[in-house]
Amino acid sequence: MPTLLLDKRKCLDNIERMARKARDHMLSLRPHFKTHQSAEIGDWFRDFDVTGITVSSFRMAAYFARAGWEEILVAFPFNPHDLDRLNRLSGSARISILLDNPDTLPFLEQLRHHTIFYLDIDTGYGRSGIRAEDTGAMEQLMVAASANRKLEFKGFYCHAGHSYKAGSRKERDAIHRKALLDLQRLKRIFSRYGPVILYGDTPNCSTQEDFTGVDEITPGNFVFYDLFQHSIGSCTLEEIAVALACPVTGKYRDSRRILVHGGAVHFSKESLVTGNREVYGRVVIPAGKGSPGIPAGKGWPVVQAEMDHPGIPWEGGWTVPPGDTCLTGISQEHGILENTGKLFDRVSIGDMLCFLPVHSCLTAHLMGEYTTLDGELISSLNSK
Amino acid sequence: MPTLLLDKRKCLDNIERMARKARDHMLSLRPHFKTHQSAEIGDWFRDFDVTGITVSSFRMAAYFARAGWEEILVAFPFNPHDLDRLNRLSGSARISILLDNPDTLPFLEQLRHHTIFYLDIDTGYGRSGIRAEDTGAMEQLMVAASANRKLEFKGFYCHAGHSYKAGSRKERDAIHRKALLDLQRLKRIFSRYGPVILYGDTPNCSTQEDFTGVDEITPGNFVFYDLFQHSIGSCTLEEIAVALACPVTGKYRDSRRILVHGGAVHFSKESLVTGNREVYGRVVIPAGKGSPGIPAGKGWPVVQAEMDHPGIPWEGGWTVPPGDTCLTGISQEHGILENTGKLFDRVSIGDMLCFLPVHSCLTAHLMGEYTTLDGELISSLNSK
Repeated sequence: MPTLLLDKRKCLDNIERMARKARDHMLSLRPHFKTHQSAEIGDWFRDFDVTGITVSSFRMAAYFARAGWEEILVAFPFNPHDLDRLNRLSGSARISILLDNPDTLPFLEQLRHHTIFYLDIDTGYGRSGIRAEDTGAMEQLMVAASANRKLEFKGFYCHAGHSYKAGSRKERDAIHRKALLDLQRLKRIFSRYGPVILYGDTPNCSTQEDFTGVDEITPGNFVFYDLFQHSIGSCTLEEIAVALACPVTGKYRDSRRILVHGGAVHFSKESLVTGNREVYGRVVIPAGKGSPGIPAGKGWPVVQAEMDHPGIPWEGGWTVPPGDTCLTGISQEHGILENTGKLFDRVSIGDMLCFLPVHSCLTAHLMGEYTTLDGELISSLNSK
Repeated sequence: MPTLLLDKRKCLDNIERMARKARDHMLSLRPHFKTHQSAEIGDWFRDFDVTGITVSSFRMAAYFARAGWEEILVAFPFNPHDLDRLNRLSGSARISILLDNPDTLPFLEQLRHHTIFYLDIDTGYGRSGIRAEDTGAMEQLMVAASANRKLEFKGFYCHAGHSYKAGSRKERDAIHRKALLDLQRLKRIFSRYGPVILYGDTPNCSTQEDFTGVDEITPGNFVFYDLFQHSIGSCTLEEIAVALACPVTGKYRDSRRILVHGGAVHFSKESLVTGNREVYGRVVIPAGKGSPGIPAGKGWPVVQAEMDHPGIPWEGGWTVPPGDTCLTGISQEHGILENTGKLFDRVSIGDMLCFLPVHSCLTAHLMGEYTTLDGELISSLNSK
């Protein structure tokens, strides 16, 4: 079975780097935990003075409340069907919510506990939120919400997710600049409320240096990063902290094709178009000296994994080889590498090949647990 | 939270239709259970004299063996890391395996029980299997395998999955015809072994009428079907037996955009390109009379679901409305419908919108459980 390997050192470095960036810019870090969805990995953030977290569903909120987190923002326009969950959870943790539509307010009349809300602001992403220009709608919502004495307006939340789709660095910079200007303007216009500004996706938090007006950043993916983040310049390949180890089960000489057990239910169907290929993962090789079957520094992953201990050859971590051998075909359980060149001759049935994922959030969600390089198993909300 | 609704009637009809087709063509039906991955749904097949099943991993094989299935083919080139699992399982069920490479044989020297194998044959799909033309490689593998007295060659298995990518009916017919001719030829060449032929994906089993030479069919997706199968002509929209009910949490007037809680971790990222849109799901509306808030026969889904009973408005099932309002944007937990026309005015925050999925296997895997139209919960291997 495929195994999701976690390089804890890289992961801790990613957390430390983001925590330092927040501190340097006098920002609070309120990380989005949807990426790892793991109580244990969540605990690693506590050493960096993180006390508040962000999640994207009440299922996650309940899980992290049980894990001892007391300050949780559910960063999704409030779903009325979650009212009971909110009421139950608010007894033991401070759950804050997002609002962007006054039609949600009638459902909140049955709130049992004092609840903080943020207005969800859309600076151009076009997914959720009130358009940043529509201050009338914001005013209207705040006034309507003020009739509910259990609700307290705290500030503005913005996820400028179109930064993921920016075609160039220049375009992404423009998206960031517009978001900052929009949020600064709202902070001014609504200064009588002393609004707090929550902002910051992984691409912008990783690459920008101006966060004027922002109070808290809420990136999530940076904890692991992935091939997509690398493709838009958020990270180096070496900073990607998870890799999926998959057993080689087939070799086909005609197109130097390799088959691995690792498909859409492990990687997800998220792909990255590079050149004329759709890529679902990129091969990495063991970095450790003395790993079984791997001549150290000799390149390709002739990884005779011990049966049922797929983590073992990887205890020294992985490195990214030159070239870019990728997973280019995927179905439910099957993964295909085509035209694998020299790799084809070095790899044998039963070896483990290891891949950086395209979208680590989805891969982690699907896999449900992590194996660290020294073989420790780490569970998550989605452990089976 | 999104809820995966299952119309049991449609599902049973799909099973019955395929069982009848198998009977009419004097074929055994050995359904692929990777689609539903549910012991309870598996049991529905027993009324149609199904005794053997197909799965795509040893995890599934173990689950269905526990559920009482005694004849299980793991339709994936054997992964040496699964040797212990095979040995354990073979004590209680007849587990058969696929082989396509002699390099796998040394691992099977430690087989504990008599084990049937099929040769995996590639008639042009290019995923796994020995190329149908390469009878030399088949002969070589059979001879090498005969040295292992625990291994018994039983026949040929072929998944002509390129039928999914055929651009036209004509092209799919040609794929099917080539596969049949290839398999008939192998049956002749290797007649001294009396080989059994296992063949048949959902598109071909749903639409073809010639199965000359085939002994058993192994389709999987037909149990639910989905938008993709509909797009290539395998089923009608009305035959799709699962739909994902998602709460409406946002409305945005500018582009008549609707936000639902239902994203990549519910639908999967599998998409279907229709026209210039990428589609992740298609809106269906409640069919039942007297469903709360729905003027019967009046078209759009003004579905005021009772909180925490999202199944209720759907007890009469669903129908596909005219037009094709679709989910066209998706992120981890968010789903977006753009330019929703009249639907926009009829739907309110807190309503449930319901969608036919693009790839039901992946959606079912992600959701992990089903809710029937009368509210019964059905678990699966992936229940959380």
